[in-house]
Amino acid sequence: MRQAVDLLLINGTVVTMNPEGSVVADGAVAIRGRSIADVGPTAALLARYEAAETHDCRGCAIIPGLINGHAHVPMSLLRGLVADQQLDVWLFGYMFPVESRFADANFTFTGTQLSCAEMIRGGTTTFVDMYYFEEEVARAADMAGMRAICGQTVMRLPTPDAASYDEGLDRARRFIEQWHAHDRIVPTIAPHAPYTCTDTIYHEAAALCRRYGVPLVTHLSETAREVQESRAEHEATPFGYAARVGAFDVKCIAAHGVHATEDDIITIRERGVGVVPCPSSNLKLASGVAPIRRFLEAGVRTGLGTDGPASNDDQDMFTEIHLAALLPKGTSGDPTAVPAREALALATSRGAQAIHLEHLIGSLVPGKRADIAIVELGRLHSAPRYSYAPDSIYTHLAYSARAGDVRDVLVDGRWLMRDRALTTLDEPDVLRRAQAIADQIDAFLAKREVNLLDKILAIGGVQQDELFEVQAKAKITDATVERIVGLLGGADLSFSKASERTQYDTYFTWNDQAKGRVRLREDHRVDPGGRVGPKYTITLTAPPDRAEYPSAVRLGRARYTAPADRTLRFYREYFQPDQVVEIEKHRRRWRIVYRGEDFALNIDTLRGHHDPGPYLEIKSRTWSSRDADAKAALIDELLALFGVPEQALVMQEYVEL
Amino acid sequence: MRQAVDLLLINGTVVTMNPEGSVVADGAVAIRGRSIADVGPTAALLARYEAAETHDCRGCAIIPGLINGHAHVPMSLLRGLVADQQLDVWLFGYMFPVESRFADANFTFTGTQLSCAEMIRGGTTTFVDMYYFEEEVARAADMAGMRAICGQTVMRLPTPDAASYDEGLDRARRFIEQWHAHDRIVPTIAPHAPYTCTDTIYHEAAALCRRYGVPLVTHLSETAREVQESRAEHEATPFGYAARVGAFDVKCIAAHGVHATEDDIITIRERGVGVVPCPSSNLKLASGVAPIRRFLEAGVRTGLGTDGPASNDDQDMFTEIHLAALLPKGTSGDPTAVPAREALALATSRGAQAIHLEHLIGSLVPGKRADIAIVELGRLHSAPRYSYAPDSIYTHLAYSARAGDVRDVLVDGRWLMRDRALTTLDEPDVLRRAQAIADQIDAFLAKREVNLLDKILAIGGVQQDELFEVQAKAKITDATVERIVGLLGGADLSFSKASERTQYDTYFTWNDQAKGRVRLREDHRVDPGGRVGPKYTITLTAPPDRAEYPSAVRLGRARYTAPADRTLRFYREYFQPDQVVEIEKHRRRWRIVYRGEDFALNIDTLRGHHDPGPYLEIKSRTWSSRDADAKAALIDELLALFGVPEQALVMQEYVEL
Repeated sequence: MRQAVDLLLINGTVVTMNPEGSVVADGAVAIRGRSIADVGPTAALLARYEAAETHDCRGCAIIPGLINGHAHVPMSLLRGLVADQQLDVWLFGYMFPVESRFADANFTFTGTQLSCAEMIRGGTTTFVDMYYFEEEVARAADMAGMRAICGQTVMRLPTPDAASYDEGLDRARRFIEQWHAHDRIVPTIAPHAPYTCTDTIYHEAAALCRRYGVPLVTHLSETAREVQESRAEHEATPFGYAARVGAFDVKCIAAHGVHATEDDIITIRERGVGVVPCPSSNLKLASGVAPIRRFLEAGVRTGLGTDGPASNDDQDMFTEIHLAALLPKGTSGDPTAVPAREALALATSRGAQAIHLEHLIGSLVPGKRADIAIVELGRLHSAPRYSYAPDSIYTHLAYSARAGDVRDVLVDGRWLMRDRALTTLDEPDVLRRAQAIADQIDAFLAKREVNLLDKILAIGGVQQDELFEVQAKAKITDATVERIVGLLGGADLSFSKASERTQYDTYFTWNDQAKGRVRLREDHRVDPGGRVGPKYTITLTAPPDRAEYPSAVRLGRARYTAPADRTLRFYREYFQPDQVVEIEKHRRRWRIVYRGEDFALNIDTLRGHHDPGPYLEIKSRTWSSRDADAKAALIDELLALFGVPEQALVMQEYVEL
Repeated sequence: MRQAVDLLLINGTVVTMNPEGSVVADGAVAIRGRSIADVGPTAALLARYEAAETHDCRGCAIIPGLINGHAHVPMSLLRGLVADQQLDVWLFGYMFPVESRFADANFTFTGTQLSCAEMIRGGTTTFVDMYYFEEEVARAADMAGMRAICGQTVMRLPTPDAASYDEGLDRARRFIEQWHAHDRIVPTIAPHAPYTCTDTIYHEAAALCRRYGVPLVTHLSETAREVQESRAEHEATPFGYAARVGAFDVKCIAAHGVHATEDDIITIRERGVGVVPCPSSNLKLASGVAPIRRFLEAGVRTGLGTDGPASNDDQDMFTEIHLAALLPKGTSGDPTAVPAREALALATSRGAQAIHLEHLIGSLVPGKRADIAIVELGRLHSAPRYSYAPDSIYTHLAYSARAGDVRDVLVDGRWLMRDRALTTLDEPDVLRRAQAIADQIDAFLAKREVNLLDKILAIGGVQQDELFEVQAKAKITDATVERIVGLLGGADLSFSKASERTQYDTYFTWNDQAKGRVRLREDHRVDPGGRVGPKYTITLTAPPDRAEYPSAVRLGRARYTAPADRTLRFYREYFQPDQVVEIEKHRRRWRIVYRGEDFALNIDTLRGHHDPGPYLEIKSRTWSSRDADAKAALIDELLALFGVPEQALVMQEYVEL
């Protein structure tokens, strides 16, 4: 008598990915409840089982559902937002400002749904995530029927869902408590990376993981710079540091590992750490190519991930499998490196080891969960089919198959996609909601792109200066310089804060002058006893309303200043000016008080300029236009006092000279 | 009054790829006959033109048809045949044997149809080919309505369509004469590569190209080894050599250029050579990553190709665009290297320059041919869409778009695909005919894989030895050695060809002993006056029928020998033995005549063996079993003459000891 099963997948090429590498040419898989009951030849299983449902897989491969070992799935909403930028411009100029403004519960839920739909269509059944509002990732993944390890991000910086890391740790604790009894969703904590965390964060995270028996998710050794800085700060590589702060005392899933050293690889193997390179992202962000072949030779638990769709730009594990097979060949000169079967294993059997779920998933073996993808073979881009060699099916799957070839997907024996129709997600609705959020972000960025103020505000730390600036400038003689210096400190002209500086100014200007002007200043005090170390500021000045007095000019304009803590290169790429003008000057500067009013008094010499000066500048700032008029009259008096003739006046700014 | 046009594509994002990089957000393209009549905003073009047909491209990008700058399109039939092998195993073990047996006119025509179908589905409208029976490529491409430059391969080795290169040159001449008046198909000659050609081939090819005004197609600097060997042989890089033999005196399309030097890049630019890297293939065959960024910086005509589908494994230009953007970032550490727009240009505007057709194709500009692909945006894997930045559309096309997103394709204003239906090819029929050819190849390889003889025959130069071998072996003492040597040259025992050798034998054996055994021998003459340099042979011996005589053994078995001109590593990967056994011996060898019969007499000492000997071997070979019996009796006599006792006899071969 035949035994009852719920589902029989028949007539397919069953690629078990079991340790023996069994492939069943005309094969079948029997599923009972959420588990695989049997695997074997179609004829044998048809004889053995009475199935409630039989599904024909002729012309298809039946493979373990793919495992995406590292992702930030809500970031699908940021796909295509920006590319081809330096990492800091990408992160500080776009990702962080957009996330801090838009990443909320709804964003996270909708982005996860979009990603789940894409992943299911591409044969992915399990993913490991790291994001904010992770309970929304868990909720959306659960509703989509997928299997997931959801890591609530914690870092020392403020995040969209936590003003401090204490709050972040609390959040993670509550999230794990709420979800840890779930069968398909593993809630956990994800300390972001050594360079954004503290020892305490890792200690607390490991304690939490130990208490609930969940794996710790983190980023390690993604870039060469990260390793270099870790050595300088911690006297250890990121892997060495992570080991020291307890991250490997629990099951750990470490994303990237691009720059893992030979010593790291020993640690990774000995401590049973799972390492998850993300080939597309590692290329796109210029991090490099992970030593996948070395990981495999060393017997490391090695998986494969897509990383976030803002740096990939998809969540297509077939692309990653393909790259995992190609890149080690191209970079080593050995075309036998990481053959097709090994590449496929990274997303199945080995991938399951990397995320510490090998007891449940990763191969088609009786007793494991029925997480399965059914992949059409022999479509135009993958025809014809060869079968003379046992490895042909791996070649086909690693080099020719694409996400679009996946026809059906099951998780826990439940259909998530059947004949290319999603069963748990309303695709048009998800697309609509995703685009609605993207439209808001698009509008925000469109405004910011034409408005330099928004672009400056986006990078933070900005303060607005007074609205009106009254100033006079004159080209003077050395004799006049002597005269001015002699008068300073006299009865009429008290002064404070005398200083001497070298200022390196870089102006960004645009053909469209309405955009305003950006100045980057590197200010070095050169007088004895002055501040040590240069000061960097960035200043945006809007185009002024100009009013001229007899000898001074009044500029009414918005003016914003911020500390400039990034490189000139960053700002140049971020602002994309039409022209860049550099001015270097030596400045003697005094704050003076004349008739009870404050003025700045500068005596400047330009270096490397066709008209080096010296120049006198008298300036004052105010929020009031009436006040500005009064100060302009006082500037006239000062110029007379200093003996500066009218024809010496210069009406342009240095950048215009 | 509105002007008449044949077709208006409206409501799309028109990505012109013109020199100004114009993108028309709600754009239209007007087509008259085979050419683009106008490009502009939809509203403007609707007002200006009266179209026989209007095609809505809402939600799509309208882009120039993609240009596949290097391919071997008939090889789609060999897709998935073999992977993850060293280049020589791949080429000499699989590609060449299969092509020499199967590549004929029908193979070429069918493979081209399969590839055209795949390329049209992926938005490719033009390709550059290099194969045999190129008139069949031309015929199939013409029928499919595609644009193509078809290069008839010529090399100094025999090819499937030419026994010698003179014949190959004649073939190419006839092909060009026959096709050069065609408007869409450019027939030409493709000297394969410097390492497979002669100076004369390149001279003649260039002369032919000059006469007919067609470009010369060739492979240059694909691998580091090729460059190294070229320097040794020609005292020039492959590019330097090609320049010397006249390949750059005409318009040249050079595939790969992976290892182009800085000097080469100057030559390439100055001589206007088009260079066409093939990222997927260059990775898969472990050739490396072409210096695309340097090509672009230097202003070189740079395109992009898929190479043959046996090394790719697809003909998907979106994958190549994606890799052309990713690889330079990952290998340089600079994420701004080859931005999206530049990557797309490699397959459009720059690609057209690389294949010397920029006057006709590569951008959507009035007057150029209407070769167009319409690409759906905002599907699951590419949603949502951002448009705040002008470059967003390039980001989308280079990083998110896939072949499967292409909805419609036009060449010369004619629909080749419309709403995802091919109009010029019967897809199921092509797939059926392709699979029929693949099935024959599959059967050939399946037989060869289990039959070592076929596998040896496939690599060529094999001769079959006599069927029967009669031999006796004994472990002897030094005294017996003295006695034998003393007897040689006596009245009863004339000898010839005395020699002394060191032989390094490597045996490949299989658990299934029915497969037989392979021996690789490296034979060094060590006696003065002997042959200089080692001799390498490969011998396959089938499992013997064994018949034992009193002291000798008769082995009846098939035995095949060939010169072994490849490395041990090649043979090991090609034959994939279960065991490898190495035996090193010192051999003194004589050809003797005893009672009018020829025997070989060996005195061997094994090195590094637990039982080093010395051993005596007496052997003779014959095609006749009766003759074998007679010789066995003579061997008994010889053993008695030498005083070898029965208990000294050894019945096993060395490899079995």
